[in-house]
Amino acid sequence: MAEYTPSELLALVNASQVSAGDERVRAITARIVADLFRTIEAFQVTPNEFWSTMQWLTRLGQADMVGLITAGLGFDRLLDILEEEADQAAARAQGTPRAIEGPLYVAGAPSAQREVRLDEGNEGKGEVLVMEGRVLDLDGKPVPHASVDVWHCNELGRYSHFDPAQPDYNLRRRIETDADGNYRFRSFLPPGYAIPPDSPVSELFALLGRHGNRPAHIHFLVSGGGKRALTTQVNIPGDTFLDDDFAFATRDGLIVSLEKVERSTEYASLGVTGPFTHVRFDFVLQDALNDAEAVAASRYAAATA
Amino acid sequence: MAEYTPSELLALVNASQVSAGDERVRAITARIVADLFRTIEAFQVTPNEFWSTMQWLTRLGQADMVGLITAGLGFDRLLDILEEEADQAAARAQGTPRAIEGPLYVAGAPSAQREVRLDEGNEGKGEVLVMEGRVLDLDGKPVPHASVDVWHCNELGRYSHFDPAQPDYNLRRRIETDADGNYRFRSFLPPGYAIPPDSPVSELFALLGRHGNRPAHIHFLVSGGGKRALTTQVNIPGDTFLDDDFAFATRDGLIVSLEKVERSTEYASLGVTGPFTHVRFDFVLQDALNDAEAVAASRYAAATA
Repeated sequence: MAEYTPSELLALVNASQVSAGDERVRAITARIVADLFRTIEAFQVTPNEFWSTMQWLTRLGQADMVGLITAGLGFDRLLDILEEEADQAAARAQGTPRAIEGPLYVAGAPSAQREVRLDEGNEGKGEVLVMEGRVLDLDGKPVPHASVDVWHCNELGRYSHFDPAQPDYNLRRRIETDADGNYRFRSFLPPGYAIPPDSPVSELFALLGRHGNRPAHIHFLVSGGGKRALTTQVNIPGDTFLDDDFAFATRDGLIVSLEKVERSTEYASLGVTGPFTHVRFDFVLQDALNDAEAVAASRYAAATA
Repeated sequence: MAEYTPSELLALVNASQVSAGDERVRAITARIVADLFRTIEAFQVTPNEFWSTMQWLTRLGQADMVGLITAGLGFDRLLDILEEEADQAAARAQGTPRAIEGPLYVAGAPSAQREVRLDEGNEGKGEVLVMEGRVLDLDGKPVPHASVDVWHCNELGRYSHFDPAQPDYNLRRRIETDADGNYRFRSFLPPGYAIPPDSPVSELFALLGRHGNRPAHIHFLVSGGGKRALTTQVNIPGDTFLDDDFAFATRDGLIVSLEKVERSTEYASLGVTGPFTHVRFDFVLQDALNDAEAVAASRYAAATA
């Protein structure tokens, strides 16, 4: 007999086993399959709806946009919330709030000591920005020779590596702080941007009646001194979508203050005397519980390894 | 304030809306996202687990193997069960049982009238098979000039178009029945096969502790006379995995009987006089409720259009 009801089939799918496998993968997969079976039944999903969705999923993978959908459906932010709930449950002191990495980090950016220009080759593309601050531990002590990986989009809202029109590592740099934990860089204030039009992501968002805009932000991956590595973003105030990010990534404590500077000789080594926008922001790292927590690794890309 | 609990975030994700969108897509997406949020929380899924899975999903799409995973997790069979439950609820008479299409159908196979050889260029690759029968309606009347699309794997368990080593449309043909609904073809008894090793599909199946074997089968897409198009498979008896198909696609009523024929002059036009294996199988088509049901379309591939 090979005729089943949906629940008999579900039981068969989830019970199938010829070797031990991985108990956790089995349990999580069984739960997801059961939920999807019930959703398909509850909504009487048609074969055409199902297969359209599977073709969409195929195109999403082929466009390498899975990481945009997870952000847009809140999963990236959820993982940050759950990490902080775990911290609280373990009574771990918080540092600078984490924020989503997004799918657009690239490791191996050119590095410099203490200060760097991100914007070489991008002169005149936006309001000149000088950002500086320190990397600190929970006691407020500097983390010497910490690593500050920084990346942001260009004036059109696109990221190098994913945009063939830009040189390698455009607007991506790694700064090693000095002995007092100081970093500083010159760049320009990046714009907000939207999900790519005519993409599997924009297709779903149109059907959901949602916009796909992100407010202006700058990404950071900070590590050093054996402290817990931090993935975060800072937001630039005044953006229309500051409180309506399609990725739900805006956070209290990560919206920087902009200071307009008409003239200063302090940043001459970065080729700027004014006028420019100045931002000061310190990154506070949590203590690490183990070596793995101290490693500055892409959360998104590292998972492939 | 942009700090949320998981349930606040979930509510925000599912409430986000700037235009009407599609109410059904919104509702189904909201359900799936809610279930996944709860699963991630319940299992305390780690960022690394989450991102590994998203990278796996990306690789699955890039390998064009979404349709293998859906089969292996029972979704293809579920859709058939739900279509039959809908038929029963509407008191529609059943014809030949439907079976899953799988992801390997290719439209546009060379066609022939009444009979064809599928196995040209594959001589000696397996036990010679002659299969014949009629396409009938629910009253047992023949469907004249019906279309019988037939495809199966080669002696290594691989399908043309997806296997660059095979010529186009190898082991794929379309037969137009004669005025009495008759079709017949010569081929060879295909073997069973397993999911591709070293693929995203085999990775998941190893973690699930499941095998990825399908028993020997031949695929059909049958249509004509304004009847409801039928996607099905027949199974060859005696296969180890007949009752343990990784795709849960074996069905009562679709396991053919094999008749050994030592010598016959009846199939000389197919270049065979014996010995060969003979199979007789009639396809019974349901009445169609509308034009769309009568169209012979790939369920899997058609969804892209």
